[in-house]
Amino acid sequence: MSDIPSFVNIREEGPREGFQIEPGPIATADKVALIDALSRTGLSEIQMVSFVNPKRVPGMADAEEVVRRYERRPGVHYSALCLNKRGVERAVSSDRLDLYGSLIASASEKFIQRNQGVDRLANIAEQRAMAACYMQAGLSIERIAIMAVFGCNFEGDIGIDKVLGAIADMKELAGELQVNPRIISLADTMAWATPSSIKRVVGAVRNRYPDHKLVLHLHDTRGLGLANAYAGLEMGIDMFDTAIGGLGGCPFAAHKGAAGNVCTEDMVFMLQEMGIETGVDLEALIDAAVLAERVVGHPLPGAVKVGGSLKALRDALA
Amino acid sequence: MSDIPSFVNIREEGPREGFQIEPGPIATADKVALIDALSRTGLSEIQMVSFVNPKRVPGMADAEEVVRRYERRPGVHYSALCLNKRGVERAVSSDRLDLYGSLIASASEKFIQRNQGVDRLANIAEQRAMAACYMQAGLSIERIAIMAVFGCNFEGDIGIDKVLGAIADMKELAGELQVNPRIISLADTMAWATPSSIKRVVGAVRNRYPDHKLVLHLHDTRGLGLANAYAGLEMGIDMFDTAIGGLGGCPFAAHKGAAGNVCTEDMVFMLQEMGIETGVDLEALIDAAVLAERVVGHPLPGAVKVGGSLKALRDALA
Repeated sequence: MSDIPSFVNIREEGPREGFQIEPGPIATADKVALIDALSRTGLSEIQMVSFVNPKRVPGMADAEEVVRRYERRPGVHYSALCLNKRGVERAVSSDRLDLYGSLIASASEKFIQRNQGVDRLANIAEQRAMAACYMQAGLSIERIAIMAVFGCNFEGDIGIDKVLGAIADMKELAGELQVNPRIISLADTMAWATPSSIKRVVGAVRNRYPDHKLVLHLHDTRGLGLANAYAGLEMGIDMFDTAIGGLGGCPFAAHKGAAGNVCTEDMVFMLQEMGIETGVDLEALIDAAVLAERVVGHPLPGAVKVGGSLKALRDALA
Repeated sequence: MSDIPSFVNIREEGPREGFQIEPGPIATADKVALIDALSRTGLSEIQMVSFVNPKRVPGMADAEEVVRRYERRPGVHYSALCLNKRGVERAVSSDRLDLYGSLIASASEKFIQRNQGVDRLANIAEQRAMAACYMQAGLSIERIAIMAVFGCNFEGDIGIDKVLGAIADMKELAGELQVNPRIISLADTMAWATPSSIKRVVGAVRNRYPDHKLVLHLHDTRGLGLANAYAGLEMGIDMFDTAIGGLGGCPFAAHKGAAGNVCTEDMVFMLQEMGIETGVDLEALIDAAVLAERVVGHPLPGAVKVGGSLKALRDALA
């Protein structure tokens, strides 16, 4: 277990993941309250909104309003997801976001057609335009983000060649743009990963790109989220995207059920109990998860907010 | 990953775990229907009832009736849990159960006081009396089962010395009885385990008892069930207790929330997708989980019954 990191960085995506997929409207004030609660937990990055077409994703129509109203807290990075040039233009027009550029591709071409409405070459062109936009605003291109890495509801099992091919496309684009993103994010967008495929794919990508930092973005649709995260930890992964309460999911992934990301508080509970530091206050996270549940108006899948952390039990026995 | 087994044995405990803890009454016919549905999935053992005091566990008052009415299917072992001599007497009076004896102890003395109302020495005496009863009925003593191995809501963290001490008590009793149970079952009764404590404790027990088969009985109260199971797989564990739909929990463990065992169909999904055989039909298990949910009348925590297995998706793409 010597590869297991001693500190893990948690990137909270609950607001963005959750607000984009919830069927009912969520009041802007409630979104802001949840973001502000998350700000107080010790999380270092919160992806708060996505700038996407409000006709396709009505829950994000108030993205600008959310960004205007949340309370900025020192030490927290407030980021946003953009999937096309128009989105980047909207994002960079705010001075209340801590943006960086990502080059986004999909290991499944069928998925990117559904999600972004573009094929591989059109996506490369779009990413080029988005990067130009970020760079024009003085922002750096920090990430390569690959979707549908472990399997795709529209394409089936995904071979490692497709994963490496999608990364190679983005590396080539980065070369052309003369930027050098050091982070490669691997997303199990449709929850096809298992602990063994996590190890296989992370191993193959690291083998090809040994000097890059790998990040896992895992979904819990089929209950394997934390098992997959643990397999990632064993491979030395020390940065994960998670969502408070297990909020969220991609509206174009043909999910049913609990489509959300790995649950932030459950992940932090596992890490804390394993002696791995996160810099995050678990009890404050649990409070934020309870708030998230109130905001969306239905139970969220996270377990620790119901089962309880072990702190209260240990305190009572001390 | 060379320790990961190629075949894993799943011991279904959903009926026993579920019927004992559900707050509302469940009709005997519904219990029988669920057991019969589980019989058709390829599971090799189903723990169907417990013979416990009906005043303490009213949901098990109809245990005899359930045993009389279920349909015996060749190749399936139908077992029962007994926690005292009176329970064993009730169990062995039926010829419709495939019983074996277990020597049961707790790594936490405070827990066994709550659960069985006895202290360590009184429990050893009780186990001696139970074993005599099993042996008198011509049954073998096959297991040592240790509860509260990874932590206790009443005692806190549990040191490995207490785990080894509880096993040593039962080994000593086995020696006195001139029996040689080859299985040691380690239960995370109150969901304190993490992947790292699974590895630590399994390693220590195996080190002390290298010629015994170790079994994990894991609860999912804090969401770590499958991550812990995966850590067990990596330690070569090839037998797990699970519960359909994630049913169940111990009525005396002071749980709140989803106290159930690791969910059978989610576990089988993980194993199947990792290429590990179980001999169980996942789609039939999912049907049984949906039935279990109907029987208890509320949502159960299992994810795959909602998120769907990957078979339908792969079939649609083939």
